[in-house]
Amino acid sequence: MMTQPADIALLTDLYELTMAQTYFHEEHNDHATFSLFIRKYPPNRGFFVSCGLEDVLRYLEEFRFSPGAIDQLHKTGIFSDDFLDYLKGLRFTGNVRAIPEGRLFFVDEPALEVTAPMIEAQIVETFIINQINLQTLIASKAARCVHAARGHGVVDFSLRRTQGTDAGMKVARASYIAGFTATSNVLAGVTYGIPLSGTMAHSFVSSYEHEIDAFHAFARNFPERSILLIETYDAITGAQKAIEVAREMAARGQSLQGVRIDSGDLLTIGREVRRILDEAGFHDVQIVGSGGLDEFDLEELSEKNASYDAYGVGTRIGVSGDAPWTDMAYKLVRYGERPVLKLSAGKVSLPDAKQVFRFVEAGQLHHDTIATYDEHMNDVEPLLKLVMANGHVTAPFPALPEIRERFRDEFARLDEKYKALEEPPAYPVLTSPNLKCLSEQIERHLVATELQPARQRVRELGES
Amino acid sequence: MMTQPADIALLTDLYELTMAQTYFHEEHNDHATFSLFIRKYPPNRGFFVSCGLEDVLRYLEEFRFSPGAIDQLHKTGIFSDDFLDYLKGLRFTGNVRAIPEGRLFFVDEPALEVTAPMIEAQIVETFIINQINLQTLIASKAARCVHAARGHGVVDFSLRRTQGTDAGMKVARASYIAGFTATSNVLAGVTYGIPLSGTMAHSFVSSYEHEIDAFHAFARNFPERSILLIETYDAITGAQKAIEVAREMAARGQSLQGVRIDSGDLLTIGREVRRILDEAGFHDVQIVGSGGLDEFDLEELSEKNASYDAYGVGTRIGVSGDAPWTDMAYKLVRYGERPVLKLSAGKVSLPDAKQVFRFVEAGQLHHDTIATYDEHMNDVEPLLKLVMANGHVTAPFPALPEIRERFRDEFARLDEKYKALEEPPAYPVLTSPNLKCLSEQIERHLVATELQPARQRVRELGES
Repeated sequence: MMTQPADIALLTDLYELTMAQTYFHEEHNDHATFSLFIRKYPPNRGFFVSCGLEDVLRYLEEFRFSPGAIDQLHKTGIFSDDFLDYLKGLRFTGNVRAIPEGRLFFVDEPALEVTAPMIEAQIVETFIINQINLQTLIASKAARCVHAARGHGVVDFSLRRTQGTDAGMKVARASYIAGFTATSNVLAGVTYGIPLSGTMAHSFVSSYEHEIDAFHAFARNFPERSILLIETYDAITGAQKAIEVAREMAARGQSLQGVRIDSGDLLTIGREVRRILDEAGFHDVQIVGSGGLDEFDLEELSEKNASYDAYGVGTRIGVSGDAPWTDMAYKLVRYGERPVLKLSAGKVSLPDAKQVFRFVEAGQLHHDTIATYDEHMNDVEPLLKLVMANGHVTAPFPALPEIRERFRDEFARLDEKYKALEEPPAYPVLTSPNLKCLSEQIERHLVATELQPARQRVRELGES
Repeated sequence: MMTQPADIALLTDLYELTMAQTYFHEEHNDHATFSLFIRKYPPNRGFFVSCGLEDVLRYLEEFRFSPGAIDQLHKTGIFSDDFLDYLKGLRFTGNVRAIPEGRLFFVDEPALEVTAPMIEAQIVETFIINQINLQTLIASKAARCVHAARGHGVVDFSLRRTQGTDAGMKVARASYIAGFTATSNVLAGVTYGIPLSGTMAHSFVSSYEHEIDAFHAFARNFPERSILLIETYDAITGAQKAIEVAREMAARGQSLQGVRIDSGDLLTIGREVRRILDEAGFHDVQIVGSGGLDEFDLEELSEKNASYDAYGVGTRIGVSGDAPWTDMAYKLVRYGERPVLKLSAGKVSLPDAKQVFRFVEAGQLHHDTIATYDEHMNDVEPLLKLVMANGHVTAPFPALPEIRERFRDEFARLDEKYKALEEPPAYPVLTSPNLKCLSEQIERHLVATELQPARQRVRELGES
């Protein structure tokens, strides 16, 4: 039911393995560099938050085909025995340069580059895109929410609606990096050390004959962390019952932590509930809002000074509802000594291994320049760091709070206009003259060698 | 990096466990029935394909908290020792009634009902929604593609862009149930017995100095299954090179299986490539189309009689791009002997355990009626079947081809209008008079007991 880690090398596209067998038989296994980047922004996006690298590096370190996996491949009847023998001993021995998790990056910039023998670099493509696409997508979406909530806490409630179990885990991690305060996902909380948060469900309330009985029961059991869901029947009457419980708790020297509202007109109901709580003297009882919220709702609630202390967000964030994928590609940019690119309609790529330089002015991010990997720019930070050498990570993985802080610091230095929820301008990303020149040179060469002779052959064929 | 199956009981929302501890201490653990249903159609949807049940039943059969999981829960400091002791021995002992995988269902109809002691039925909520939401979403999306492709094969190429690894597996399975012919996902292929399919990547072509060298190399290695990607530089010149290779293969007594086009104006390029191939006498060389396709593209290509023999679909199907979630809920409908519902704004639910009856006329699906679980209707098929009794499945899981056939047969009996890609009419789903009456009765009771007294208290509080 869950994917077994032992089988993970098989979690790849068939063509990665048929191409690999071809490379193997043809001895076409020089060092290759692949570049991972996003071709264009999803609607209304102006930045990406690098996320997913740790999973990729763990995968590469542990990469191997188990005897069971080899057996399964044998049974498909597609592969030759000598190739399967070769796969048994295959390990990832390459280098990885990457933009660290939590850093910002932009369209066309390589978030990661793999340099390894062609077979290794090819086979790992599918998993690398799968993980970095998802985690970057969610971290970027979550960052928009945190920004829109303007200091109010945002909690991940998405596990039930994430696209599968792996996404449930990665959404909790990615959204925490982007500044969420907690997750409802217990396994993610204990696995990643993310604070856990939760309230109660409508089912809890309706399982009791009277709503107030449900509130009493919960408060008896969790006097330190009771957040009562008050709109199973009606939010205002629910708030009144919550006040009764809060009074009883106060008499016992306890305090009600909060109430949650999960449906209806959140702005109006929240204000009314705040007023009722305040009038009863419960200024410290927090109000949590939830129910299909996304960053646009949070921004509206923030702008109108809504009465919520924190928000729980689920579905729309956990699947990045308005933009559930990025146009992420893992492209061969160099084979052996030869920089390469493709000319496919609308998908022309930049050749060769690269570096990204981030220019900062007066503490603010100013622009980036994509250059070839061997260019240097004085006093400008190169973003791609060597994170894996010869198949081994170059340093211990940073702790999650460190990545979270890295994001917070850099995001604070990004101009507000690029954080606009709707149609932000494009952050300036330049191409170095050197890279531009190389690109044009290769394009001319490809047009000359790959297109003209064939067009010539078309004519010949027509005449023959 | 991958979720360990041993930890899966922790893959739940925190509130499921805090509510469970409350139920435990309060001895509030009567049998409860929860009903899983979808509240409304995503945009442009007119049906759902039941999918995900096997994973849910396996989860329920294997459900337990490992010693390690108990230890992790202990460390959170949230739970009491007696409750954690209780969790150690907790198993799922309930019954499940469900609409079998591959069958159609519609808005408001329970796809699954769990009846179990309250604690068990509550804790499993998160995983059940997580799996059935995803798999039903994808099977329903994939069915739209198969329908739009009008007999042309559709292959799942989505693994790199699915939201995580679990989704990658489940998308392959769900889309195969809905009629896809194959998947590129090797692990899904060998795990579920789905035919594998694949061509080659642009990186394969560009790693060779000349495109034709790449084609030669692949054809040498896979003479039985060569599908050449012809538009790395230009589709027409690529097609000419493919013909050269096809001629050489023919001379060796082999035949080129096909070519793939992955970008540009697929309709026009496909026609031109077909013409070139036909003129060269290669009528049997297939053309595969891919590149960001969804069901709307497939319908347009079908309507214009495009030259493609098969399609590879990825991202937009693998994340259900236009509708990446369903509004699926798992609601308490009965506790002990008491049917329950909630009144939350816009989310009023139908009470009690249910049955769905499917009325067929002249072999065509005519309408469904949702009734209470103990109603009978002569000669009308009840859709919810008992699939788990006392924590054990009632029958071996059906084989995937059987589920696939079940879908195909029923889908053929659904009127075309409900399959429209845009704004299909709603399939008629009625509520039995009995259920309607029960619903109104409970609603009146709740308004009387839960709302009026509280409103009365509001007045009293105002006066005090």
